[in-house]
Amino acid sequence: MGNMKEYTIAVVGATGAVGQKMIQLLEKSEIPLKELKLLASARSAGKTATFKGKEYKIEETTNESFKNVDIALFSAGGSITKAFEKAARESGAVVIDNTSAFRMDENTPLVVPEVNAEALHNHNQLIANPNCSTTQMVVALKPIKEAFGLSRVIVSTYQAVSGAGVEALEELDTQTASVLKGEEVEASILPSAGDKKHYQMAFNVIPQIDLFSDEGYTFEEWKMINETKKIMGMPNLKVSATCVRVPVKYGHSESVYIEIDKDDVSVADLRAVLADAPGIIVQDDPSTQLYPLATESEDKKDTFVGRIRKDPDDKKGFHLWIVSDNLIKGAAWNSIQIAETMIDMNLI
Amino acid sequence: MGNMKEYTIAVVGATGAVGQKMIQLLEKSEIPLKELKLLASARSAGKTATFKGKEYKIEETTNESFKNVDIALFSAGGSITKAFEKAARESGAVVIDNTSAFRMDENTPLVVPEVNAEALHNHNQLIANPNCSTTQMVVALKPIKEAFGLSRVIVSTYQAVSGAGVEALEELDTQTASVLKGEEVEASILPSAGDKKHYQMAFNVIPQIDLFSDEGYTFEEWKMINETKKIMGMPNLKVSATCVRVPVKYGHSESVYIEIDKDDVSVADLRAVLADAPGIIVQDDPSTQLYPLATESEDKKDTFVGRIRKDPDDKKGFHLWIVSDNLIKGAAWNSIQIAETMIDMNLI
Repeated sequence: MGNMKEYTIAVVGATGAVGQKMIQLLEKSEIPLKELKLLASARSAGKTATFKGKEYKIEETTNESFKNVDIALFSAGGSITKAFEKAARESGAVVIDNTSAFRMDENTPLVVPEVNAEALHNHNQLIANPNCSTTQMVVALKPIKEAFGLSRVIVSTYQAVSGAGVEALEELDTQTASVLKGEEVEASILPSAGDKKHYQMAFNVIPQIDLFSDEGYTFEEWKMINETKKIMGMPNLKVSATCVRVPVKYGHSESVYIEIDKDDVSVADLRAVLADAPGIIVQDDPSTQLYPLATESEDKKDTFVGRIRKDPDDKKGFHLWIVSDNLIKGAAWNSIQIAETMIDMNLI
Repeated sequence: MGNMKEYTIAVVGATGAVGQKMIQLLEKSEIPLKELKLLASARSAGKTATFKGKEYKIEETTNESFKNVDIALFSAGGSITKAFEKAARESGAVVIDNTSAFRMDENTPLVVPEVNAEALHNHNQLIANPNCSTTQMVVALKPIKEAFGLSRVIVSTYQAVSGAGVEALEELDTQTASVLKGEEVEASILPSAGDKKHYQMAFNVIPQIDLFSDEGYTFEEWKMINETKKIMGMPNLKVSATCVRVPVKYGHSESVYIEIDKDDVSVADLRAVLADAPGIIVQDDPSTQLYPLATESEDKKDTFVGRIRKDPDDKKGFHLWIVSDNLIKGAAWNSIQIAETMIDMNLI
């Protein structure tokens, strides 16, 4: 960290899957901490959480919660962000929001530090953290764009159940146990708690994440399409997406097809550029069956890339297999990394 | 069936996952059956199987097994096909082979009846049944090609564990139970029994099916690429594939991106053409969360298509979500359907 200032940090949504990861990551962060405030809904207020061996009481989020807070990390759903971001900013806090509430707002930077840290200069005390499936993809796309140009992205995802929250993880376990015992399976959360119909997730794949939006796409798919264009600063980049939930607990996997501008790039060239890029670990060796696996990504900050191949029928087409822990780089770590980067840039 | 002839049918590999499905499907087939011969390895000989309430003894496959056999359905691995197809043909049998042994042989028709039944005229007592992941895809691609032209296919698969055999299914169950109990997971079969390293399949996705071949692609991916071009009769069709195993028991799902020739086709046009096509059930209504699911495809002969969407950045680009039971249309049913079709065409 570039200075000796100490910061008061609030975590809004401290009892959620992402909030819990934020607390764990803050324990290891280099940010000099003056005070930590753990906030949640009235329902969770009074519970406790441990931070650096000390017990912290979780408080209800109110407009008064943000007094003397320097950095407010929001991850409690878009409605909570919309309800409290103004109070937080008026109290002087910089809000780093992990919900979709302000991601496409043109006055709000949408930031993945490896990709577009420079956008942080335009913050108005509010920075949006992208959708998990977008974040890991743009980490890999950025160095490719810089080295070879990029014209097109077609992605199919294999997304972990933890992205749907703690209750969805419990439902996966319960359903899985039922299938193994030959019992009837009950579904009440997945694919989306807010939707009408619920389907078995155990031993199944569900091609729906979030609710359906227009043109037959889900909101999750539109997030990947629109957020990628915004973060990459490429409004004309062709992006299309199919988002699918798989019975995995942690770690999103993505089959990403890209078209680059140059037609004389080899797989070795692409691999070298990715290996040199920040935040990426290349795992790509067919001779030793080395490729990224969701189970191996758990609790790691990196984005793992492998299965790098050229389209046999298109010199500019390549496949990538991109894996990262959706709760870490896809959510909690990217938020804290934004805070660390802003401190380094003397923006907080 | 077009005539009253009765047929003696042999199932080679009768104890395997596909062989067992063949026996079940033959019970309901319209083929007039004179005699059924169930063949397997020496190891399985002496076991029994039930067919129409009667017990059948499973015999060891030898060169003499095919006497008086009219139709020999092979599904016991490429080496068994190579060892016995000649004896079967010399005995007068028509061999319908579910292995990869002869699929790319230029003198052997590779057939999905809905797509290229006319290729059966050129049979030389040997017809190849395509790879499971290819079959369900071409069923959907054919009517699209006929109506709108087709120039490109990019597919990412979500393939069920049953495609790797009965022991792989048992490994998935054992691993899953271990994870639920918090015990150590052991892997000795998946992703490919013949490869060196084995990875956890429970609550994971593995981007490797079959062994690795050249250019960083697996054999499974090359099968999808080359077989699709052959069956569609389109050597210049651009096809690329990423094949991925998911912790699903039955039913392959595929995220298929296509480019058609016409640029004025709507999603409704595409849906109508697919709904009219043989072997396809369209399940596609975002307003009621209707889309194909692997668990719903089990033991069905149809190919299910949904999530039909236009690429927001490309008038000729569309997404499809294609699901079918990999052991039924992907293997056993397609083989029996080839036999039924050949009888109808007076070729047997």
